[in-house]
Amino acid sequence: MNYETILHEIYQESKTLPIIGNVSISIPELTKVDPDKFGIHLISIEGEDFGIGDSNEKFSIQSVSKVLTVALAFSFLDERIWERVGVEPSGSAFNSLVQLEYEKGIPRNPFINAGAIVIADMLVTHLENPKQDFLDFIRMISGSPTIDFNLKVAQSEKDTRFRNAALANFLKSFGNITNDVEMVLDFYFHQCSIEMTCKELAHSFFFLANEGKTISGIQVLTKSQVKRLNALMQTCGFYDESGEYTYKVGLPGKSGIGGGIAALYPKNFVVSTWSPRLNEKGNSDLGMNALELLTTKTGMSIF
Amino acid sequence: MNYETILHEIYQESKTLPIIGNVSISIPELTKVDPDKFGIHLISIEGEDFGIGDSNEKFSIQSVSKVLTVALAFSFLDERIWERVGVEPSGSAFNSLVQLEYEKGIPRNPFINAGAIVIADMLVTHLENPKQDFLDFIRMISGSPTIDFNLKVAQSEKDTRFRNAALANFLKSFGNITNDVEMVLDFYFHQCSIEMTCKELAHSFFFLANEGKTISGIQVLTKSQVKRLNALMQTCGFYDESGEYTYKVGLPGKSGIGGGIAALYPKNFVVSTWSPRLNEKGNSDLGMNALELLTTKTGMSIF
Amino acid sequence: MNYETILHEIYQESKTLPIIGNVSISIPELTKVDPDKFGIHLISIEGEDFGIGDSNEKFSIQSVSKVLTVALAFSFLDERIWERVGVEPSGSAFNSLVQLEYEKGIPRNPFINAGAIVIADMLVTHLENPKQDFLDFIRMISGSPTIDFNLKVAQSEKDTRFRNAALANFLKSFGNITNDVEMVLDFYFHQCSIEMTCKELAHSFFFLANEGKTISGIQVLTKSQVKRLNALMQTCGFYDESGEYTYKVGLPGKSGIGGGIAALYPKNFVVSTWSPRLNEKGNSDLGMNALELLTTKTGMSIF
Amino acid sequence: MNYETILHEIYQESKTLPIIGNVSISIPELTKVDPDKFGIHLISIEGEDFGIGDSNEKFSIQSVSKVLTVALAFSFLDERIWERVGVEPSGSAFNSLVQLEYEKGIPRNPFINAGAIVIADMLVTHLENPKQDFLDFIRMISGSPTIDFNLKVAQSEKDTRFRNAALANFLKSFGNITNDVEMVLDFYFHQCSIEMTCKELAHSFFFLANEGKTISGIQVLTKSQVKRLNALMQTCGFYDESGEYTYKVGLPGKSGIGGGIAALYPKNFVVSTWSPRLNEKGNSDLGMNALELLTTKTGMSIF
Repeated sequence: MNYETILHEIYQESKTLPIIGNVSISIPELTKVDPDKFGIHLISIEGEDFGIGDSNEKFSIQSVSKVLTVALAFSFLDERIWERVGVEPSGSAFNSLVQLEYEKGIPRNPFINAGAIVIADMLVTHLENPKQDFLDFIRMISGSPTIDFNLKVAQSEKDTRFRNAALANFLKSFGNITNDVEMVLDFYFHQCSIEMTCKELAHSFFFLANEGKTISGIQVLTKSQVKRLNALMQTCGFYDESGEYTYKVGLPGKSGIGGGIAALYPKNFVVSTWSPRLNEKGNSDLGMNALELLTTKTGMSIF
Repeated sequence: MNYETILHEIYQESKTLPIIGNVSISIPELTKVDPDKFGIHLISIEGEDFGIGDSNEKFSIQSVSKVLTVALAFSFLDERIWERVGVEPSGSAFNSLVQLEYEKGIPRNPFINAGAIVIADMLVTHLENPKQDFLDFIRMISGSPTIDFNLKVAQSEKDTRFRNAALANFLKSFGNITNDVEMVLDFYFHQCSIEMTCKELAHSFFFLANEGKTISGIQVLTKSQVKRLNALMQTCGFYDESGEYTYKVGLPGKSGIGGGIAALYPKNFVVSTWSPRLNEKGNSDLGMNALELLTTKTGMSIF
Repeated sequence: MNYETILHEIYQESKTLPIIGNVSISIPELTKVDPDKFGIHLISIEGEDFGIGDSNEKFSIQSVSKVLTVALAFSFLDERIWERVGVEPSGSAFNSLVQLEYEKGIPRNPFINAGAIVIADMLVTHLENPKQDFLDFIRMISGSPTIDFNLKVAQSEKDTRFRNAALANFLKSFGNITNDVEMVLDFYFHQCSIEMTCKELAHSFFFLANEGKTISGIQVLTKSQVKRLNALMQTCGFYDESGEYTYKVGLPGKSGIGGGIAALYPKNFVVSTWSPRLNEKGNSDLGMNALELLTTKTGMSIF
Repeated sequence: MNYETILHEIYQESKTLPIIGNVSISIPELTKVDPDKFGIHLISIEGEDFGIGDSNEKFSIQSVSKVLTVALAFSFLDERIWERVGVEPSGSAFNSLVQLEYEKGIPRNPFINAGAIVIADMLVTHLENPKQDFLDFIRMISGSPTIDFNLKVAQSEKDTRFRNAALANFLKSFGNITNDVEMVLDFYFHQCSIEMTCKELAHSFFFLANEGKTISGIQVLTKSQVKRLNALMQTCGFYDESGEYTYKVGLPGKSGIGGGIAALYPKNFVVSTWSPRLNEKGNSDLGMNALELLTTKTGMSIF
């Protein structure tokens, strides 16, 4: 199977699809992005590594970062992280407070905002210099020392923080935030503001397709932990569209409102897409279509 | 009908009831209150004015203050206040976020915390010196120039503010808070920290039994506004126990977690009670019992 | 105060209001009603007794009957009826199943469908010939021996019973229906199909304004029971518009989707209205407006 | 990898685990089952085919049948089945009515009761002799002509049908049941009452691991349909424990309250377990543990 040829086909075919959705308006700074950007990158376990379209342009990874904070927390807390956050799909929007109230401050999973804020709190507690240490972790797993926060985006998220501030304070009211709310949110807004290219994103996720080992051979998580994190992405990675995504694509993946998606076929490849137009559930429309084409064309899904 | 005799009877009878509930633990400063305090005061339209028990001791009026902020906002915004807050009972706990999410940031009524925070936002916008002006209003309607905030209580509420901060930020995320969240919460915590005696509380509410006129004859609200505010207290004054309260007592009233209750029989009297032990719904157990005895004994309910 | 003059004024004024809403489409048989019917009837404790408009035409009282089934159950079970149904406003639509699930099969109050079905179950248990006995009760309190079920309407409700059948089965699954589901629904559909004129309806409710005594002097409920039932109507009588109704009208009342409303001023009068056009909450638009005019014009509200 | 050896190990190891849970009490007839039954069967694509423990005893497959009704409906309606039922995990209990109300009668997925009842309605519409035709389908895919309904169990489900009757009537009220409610429920209760051995169950699911082909080579679904059905099992197969199951086991699977589970590794094997003791979410405790051991020991998960 030649991935490069397939990717070209998918890229061309995707560009003929009807244009659907718009750039996220929830963070003012992100509305400045050109909605028609579109890039794909794939890296296989065997060493194929190539991109197409705007795959070398930086974009805001936003919620895709949640997989990486969970990975880092998982690496030093292991199963203890599930004492404060669940592993069930939420059936609600990514920023809903409803389930949090019914379930007394234990977020359904770490990929909705409430869960990611709890994970951020764990990192703030365990890391000496949380923001820098997390950035170093990202740089390490991706092999890209230039990956950085976009401070304008972080500030823009802070300026329009009210829903996330509501979630963080609500969590704190249940005792599920141990640090200062502001400090945790500051970390969270920075984590979401990280910018990567499709290539960097695919490289960052390489360890999840490679039984825990990065491209450079560092064992970030155990085999078992990687399986579990992949399982979690499969059931919870696309907010309340996770079922639909799994039904159509059949590869563990995570989306962000910056329009990025990272997905992977364990022991085979990682693929990342970027297209800023979001569907009504907040997931990249073109990105999801491209991934569906990929699994349909190649038959390469986990199911 | 001799109110004084009846009040004595009720007071004596109430003291023989089983002791139920505890002082609220939601605000640390309030836990210092002696749980066995118990006072009643009644002022009639005809001029009877007397108290019993600990009716001349100051206590934190907490949510009872919500009636007075609504009255003040009502006096200058009239029906426009209902553009941002409803008049329906909530069917949920006083600090629930669930309905707020389903109803897109419009609180069910101004007596649950979310609604009171929206009213606070209105006052912050319309008053030149919000805290002082509100205090002056209270002093004016009660005729007690010494009524004041308890700054320790206000600070204690600020220190444990997370649930209210969640509500305020959530409201702001829906655009239903126009001022700075911190400024609105600061006003709200001060409003709740006001201390009164049973006597002062009964006097403050006099205008609601007297077709809008205070004891000193100032027309605070119109007859029609007073009717509406009383109706609102009847359906929403006791959180998600409002139905039970109405069923048993049948007088418009409002409770607070400081253990105070103010209730009134339009064109007849205002009665206030204070007993800090709360039932599981957050309402003063002894206070509710005393009011039930009052309506049962006298047959004086609005129904 | 001359009620007759006022009623004439209200009737004339109401007829100039914009026409809003439509006849209920939930029961096919009811869609045949002329939407522009409009009648009012008032009976005072002092003996005034007159109607206007279509006040002598029969209409389907539908949910207004719920007050009368509660009254009958209350008369022989007293406070025990609250073991199986609550007294809190629901904050949800009249036929919602959501709260029922959260609250494990105990309906919020007897005026939403679920609660009324539980009351129907009580009557089926306690009455020898449930339908006939209930009809006899209605005839007795109203003094109208010709009041009857409309069997076509009952059948039409049965044919489109799915939501109510869902509620009844759901209640049964929680153990809160003791008889056969079909038998209880049959009673319920018949109770709702009762037809009265405005005059008969006002007469039926007379005992609720008269401390428990019917026009002919029969003590149906105790004074205390009547107060409680009135209180319940005030907080729960208009589904999730009860707060709005109480805010505007300030008289205990109950509406039905046939377009009827019965309301009362304790110790003063009962007023009934009929206009089949319903607002979006399922309450008679013109009826609510007429009652609001009545309280505004006369100042006669309980608050 | 020798599956037989592994299965023996798992079987022995599982038997030393603490005994947790009890037989389902929701259907009286099922309570008669010996709680300590335990069987496993595995069939691989390569032809290995063996069982252990009570793997040749019949048990009630209950909700496991939902996969087979979906497969049959999918085979003749293809993607059109998703017009009436979703593919998202529910986040609620299997028999919840709450989401159904919020989502206007479209069940979240076909593996919760509401969704399965809608699928049953489709089959009742499309099959000439629904019960017999479905039975024939099961016999065909399993290769076991003796598989049958247990009429006592079907009757027992009918006798205690209230929750399911509530769901079916509720669906009908939204127009999402086209046939008579009783007829649909009759089909549904029969489908759930089907009895199989672990061996028969594993054989029935063989086509899902074999790209749509049964053991005898009949193409039941297309490759693509099989992938989609497997994906759906992964996200929704274990009610509101689907996330936990996926996290721990990582194989598409479906459980039933009879204590059975069928799970599969696409292109590799199908494994079935039976142990009637259920955890609090209604899934077989020992079965889930056995499957977790299987994936842990062999590393054979899809992630």
